[in-house]
Amino acid sequence: MDKRKIIIDTDPGQDDAVAILLALGSPEEIEVLGITAVAGNVPLSLTESNARRVCELAGRPDVKVFAGCDRPMGRPLVTAEHVHGETGLNGPVLPDPTMPLQEQHGVDFIIDTLRAEASGTVTLCPLGPLTNIATAFEKAPDIVEKVQEIVLMGGAYFEVGNITPAAEFNIYVDPQAADIVFKSGAPIVVMPLDVTHKALVTPARNDAFRNIGNRVGIAVAEMTDFFERFDKEKYGSDGAPLHDPCVTAYLIKPELFKGRHINVEIETQSELTMGMTVADWWGVTDRPANATFMGDVDSDGFFALIAERIARL
Amino acid sequence: MDKRKIIIDTDPGQDDAVAILLALGSPEEIEVLGITAVAGNVPLSLTESNARRVCELAGRPDVKVFAGCDRPMGRPLVTAEHVHGETGLNGPVLPDPTMPLQEQHGVDFIIDTLRAEASGTVTLCPLGPLTNIATAFEKAPDIVEKVQEIVLMGGAYFEVGNITPAAEFNIYVDPQAADIVFKSGAPIVVMPLDVTHKALVTPARNDAFRNIGNRVGIAVAEMTDFFERFDKEKYGSDGAPLHDPCVTAYLIKPELFKGRHINVEIETQSELTMGMTVADWWGVTDRPANATFMGDVDSDGFFALIAERIARL
Amino acid sequence: MDKRKIIIDTDPGQDDAVAILLALGSPEEIEVLGITAVAGNVPLSLTESNARRVCELAGRPDVKVFAGCDRPMGRPLVTAEHVHGETGLNGPVLPDPTMPLQEQHGVDFIIDTLRAEASGTVTLCPLGPLTNIATAFEKAPDIVEKVQEIVLMGGAYFEVGNITPAAEFNIYVDPQAADIVFKSGAPIVVMPLDVTHKALVTPARNDAFRNIGNRVGIAVAEMTDFFERFDKEKYGSDGAPLHDPCVTAYLIKPELFKGRHINVEIETQSELTMGMTVADWWGVTDRPANATFMGDVDSDGFFALIAERIARL
Amino acid sequence: MDKRKIIIDTDPGQDDAVAILLALGSPEEIEVLGITAVAGNVPLSLTESNARRVCELAGRPDVKVFAGCDRPMGRPLVTAEHVHGETGLNGPVLPDPTMPLQEQHGVDFIIDTLRAEASGTVTLCPLGPLTNIATAFEKAPDIVEKVQEIVLMGGAYFEVGNITPAAEFNIYVDPQAADIVFKSGAPIVVMPLDVTHKALVTPARNDAFRNIGNRVGIAVAEMTDFFERFDKEKYGSDGAPLHDPCVTAYLIKPELFKGRHINVEIETQSELTMGMTVADWWGVTDRPANATFMGDVDSDGFFALIAERIARL
Repeated sequence: MDKRKIIIDTDPGQDDAVAILLALGSPEEIEVLGITAVAGNVPLSLTESNARRVCELAGRPDVKVFAGCDRPMGRPLVTAEHVHGETGLNGPVLPDPTMPLQEQHGVDFIIDTLRAEASGTVTLCPLGPLTNIATAFEKAPDIVEKVQEIVLMGGAYFEVGNITPAAEFNIYVDPQAADIVFKSGAPIVVMPLDVTHKALVTPARNDAFRNIGNRVGIAVAEMTDFFERFDKEKYGSDGAPLHDPCVTAYLIKPELFKGRHINVEIETQSELTMGMTVADWWGVTDRPANATFMGDVDSDGFFALIAERIARL
Repeated sequence: MDKRKIIIDTDPGQDDAVAILLALGSPEEIEVLGITAVAGNVPLSLTESNARRVCELAGRPDVKVFAGCDRPMGRPLVTAEHVHGETGLNGPVLPDPTMPLQEQHGVDFIIDTLRAEASGTVTLCPLGPLTNIATAFEKAPDIVEKVQEIVLMGGAYFEVGNITPAAEFNIYVDPQAADIVFKSGAPIVVMPLDVTHKALVTPARNDAFRNIGNRVGIAVAEMTDFFERFDKEKYGSDGAPLHDPCVTAYLIKPELFKGRHINVEIETQSELTMGMTVADWWGVTDRPANATFMGDVDSDGFFALIAERIARL
Repeated sequence: MDKRKIIIDTDPGQDDAVAILLALGSPEEIEVLGITAVAGNVPLSLTESNARRVCELAGRPDVKVFAGCDRPMGRPLVTAEHVHGETGLNGPVLPDPTMPLQEQHGVDFIIDTLRAEASGTVTLCPLGPLTNIATAFEKAPDIVEKVQEIVLMGGAYFEVGNITPAAEFNIYVDPQAADIVFKSGAPIVVMPLDVTHKALVTPARNDAFRNIGNRVGIAVAEMTDFFERFDKEKYGSDGAPLHDPCVTAYLIKPELFKGRHINVEIETQSELTMGMTVADWWGVTDRPANATFMGDVDSDGFFALIAERIARL
Repeated sequence: MDKRKIIIDTDPGQDDAVAILLALGSPEEIEVLGITAVAGNVPLSLTESNARRVCELAGRPDVKVFAGCDRPMGRPLVTAEHVHGETGLNGPVLPDPTMPLQEQHGVDFIIDTLRAEASGTVTLCPLGPLTNIATAFEKAPDIVEKVQEIVLMGGAYFEVGNITPAAEFNIYVDPQAADIVFKSGAPIVVMPLDVTHKALVTPARNDAFRNIGNRVGIAVAEMTDFFERFDKEKYGSDGAPLHDPCVTAYLIKPELFKGRHINVEIETQSELTMGMTVADWWGVTDRPANATFMGDVDSDGFFALIAERIARL
């Protein structure tokens, strides 16, 4: 497998942070062309500075970080401080970043990069609402066919929803953007709650992070300590789901995941079901397949991979 | 527990038939005041004659059977011959019924019965689309507060849908009627796909029906033989889910079922998610609880109960 | 022209009252088989008693008046006391009715009448929300093809709306019922705001009613005195629109009205435009015609007709 | 009145052309900072070249013309060749443009201009779908408060619709973009069909254009000759409505127009009424005013103004 060139589009978020760290800890498989921040878990001013914090934690102040859109298309921003804390990265104490924010708008970085690189060689990795991606596709439709793949965290089918009874947070925040992306024709791999709720950080797994002993491993353990409180209380589960690292793990070891290539449509009309990812898992419609929708993960292999790569940082 | 007086509202359907047989085989716990047929799995002319066939199979030609509404409120009728066969009761050879169809409209029978009986003593058991119930509530709103309980088969949450990726058949066929019933204020117990997909007729369980040796047990086994082909092919499951008998089993042994008292809303606006039962299982909204939504069943206990009662017929 | 047998379905309402009086004053052209009341301008208990008040005012206590549905299908009732006053008939002092309310439900009267009379000989005249008509069609679909014509007051195109910026009151109150009726296939004549806003009771026209000098003429003048305050203040118009009498006037003198036979669809999905009558006046779609949508009235001829017939009562 | 600095956002279109010519012929009142083309009446490749054709016709090859978005947000492009001809500017024979298209994306020109100029000094004049404006607002929300005013052609209230029974073309093509703009908080003046259908090019008025005798006047007359065929056939009207010049005429002589400052919302949910501009003309809701919605025009003054300014070119 060739090394994959990726743009990470993100709203960190503790689990976003782990996803970025996993990518930066895997230089043989992944080249991070840049990171674009978007409003989501917390407002844009926090997500862009958090993205830089995470790069500095990884010892990579050279990574280019861009600010993108600061609100969804056509809807007010909904955030999730009740999950991530008011900074978005509550847990470890991370210093304010000193590396610069790039001047260019994140949307234009996406457009320019896809135009500059050879067609079919750049993968987009959205970990938050799809606003930046959809705005780039809107402004420059010629880039759609140049995308190698979009590997995203978002949506749910059998797990249905978390922010509402019918919708997962990332898609719910900007359903119009999601609709644009899912109808774009670009190849899409989806990591929904169906997968990420099987990727739980149990106490043993978090101890494994902590016991790596380096600065990054301890910070990840502290992030997860904070993050897991929410899911434990809400679902009575054994630990926090590590949603976003599924995206970067897939780029390194796709064989960890199982899913189906099916039709996925986004609900954009009804407030009751707004943002639902209607996945035709059972093939009951004749709508054409437009995404590989994952349903299962080898969670032991997944956590082993993360621990191994964090140890390298 | 007092003997419960019920009206079965139904669109037989093999699993409807078993639900009716279970009720008729349980005279100590259940008094069937009447059966109202509705269009659903197959058109009304078939569902009303099938209801009579089943009563005669049970040796109960005295049961009053009424024809109700022959199409949903405001949408064309969708049927499910691909599941139930073109008669709705494919499998056993059952003779044409000789017992009469009652002259009164099923909707008026529901209204008159609820007005005639003491308030809080009549339970409605809908096994198909909720058209008859909603039309009765529309025509005579005074009866709503007289209903003891509505115990219905319909909807899904984690199992999401069968007729579309987002909706279960009974609710999808008449979402407006379902919306009226779920907003009515009457006490509601829901048996969704989440439960019924755990109530699978395995070969061993169907042999148990057949080995009862009486006419009813053999007919039930033949119905299930036919019925299960669909689910085996579609889901790769071990056998057919016995959806509707969950309703009548609940009246006899409620302890077989586990669920949550939560808010359930019906999607009536968007074609993509039409008929979805949006169940707030995780309590993420502040919408008030209006239904007990079941999530689990003791399937061994459930099948033992059915076999025991069918043996009595 | 043969004498037309009609059922008036109504929620009086001052203008409903004039529509009824016009029908009762025209025995050579119109035979009123019965009047069914529905919830609308005011709650059902008032509309049914107002219907009887109007019959007694006309000296016709023999007319059969029935109570129908007391709320719309699937939506809470919205009323219009701000237009009609808290009794619905504010203006004249009319004694409490002494003629009886029929025991039969209005919906069943509509069904039984359409089944009993020769097919194609009974016209339905809805002057309020279409709840009773749609519920009858739902319960007994066989009656649809027996309807001679539905002549109704409701909707708007160029006048757009009165209760909301996009919807007229009668249709807005029960858009689901309207949708059922407009899709039923029965022949429909619509008197929308486009017509009724051209049928204004100017001071001269109201004086003409008063100067008839009989009890009915004076009561009509008093009703209109009350009724017109609303439109004068809201629209700055010359007087109140006499909406509902357009329906009964059409039965007597159809040549007073001009319109187009076009497609009319009802908005039932979006709250913003809920209840809009989307009339394809310019023929820009290929949807088939399902209604004659009136657009103009000879208002002098219309008021002359009303005055002439009221004088006979 | 100070000279107004404007950006014309347009999809020419014959009437767009006249609007541009009117602006370019009014250098004392209007400074055109640039023209951004958008997909609408015809695809983007035609609208951008038509914009340049019109600048050259006006003898102004120095005007900066930019290409913007080539399709609506989240919906496929709908065009109107049946009105404007396959080039969008059918009628006169205009040579291919030789002036260059600017390299910058139209959306970025809007953003950069609003950031570079003093706040409150730049007016946006959209004559087509609002895609470019909404995309600029999405990408750079800080510019919204810098906009002096948005004066746009689009929507309808009493005239209701032209492309569908409920929607005007410009808003229908991109209702999501319109929704973003109308909710943005920027000051908005709307020239709906209610106004533009009163601005008809009668034969006498078109002769007046032709009789100016200069190249521009003759071209305008030829455009209108082509353009008017559509409306004459469809509406039986006296001539073509000159929609878009209402926008630029307003900048020169606002006193030609009358309207109300009211709430205007965009229908984005229901396909039946998609793109309707729901204008609360009668004040029946308590939704806050967000636009000045024009309802009337002094059409003689309007045509005199156009003729006078075209004569200067």
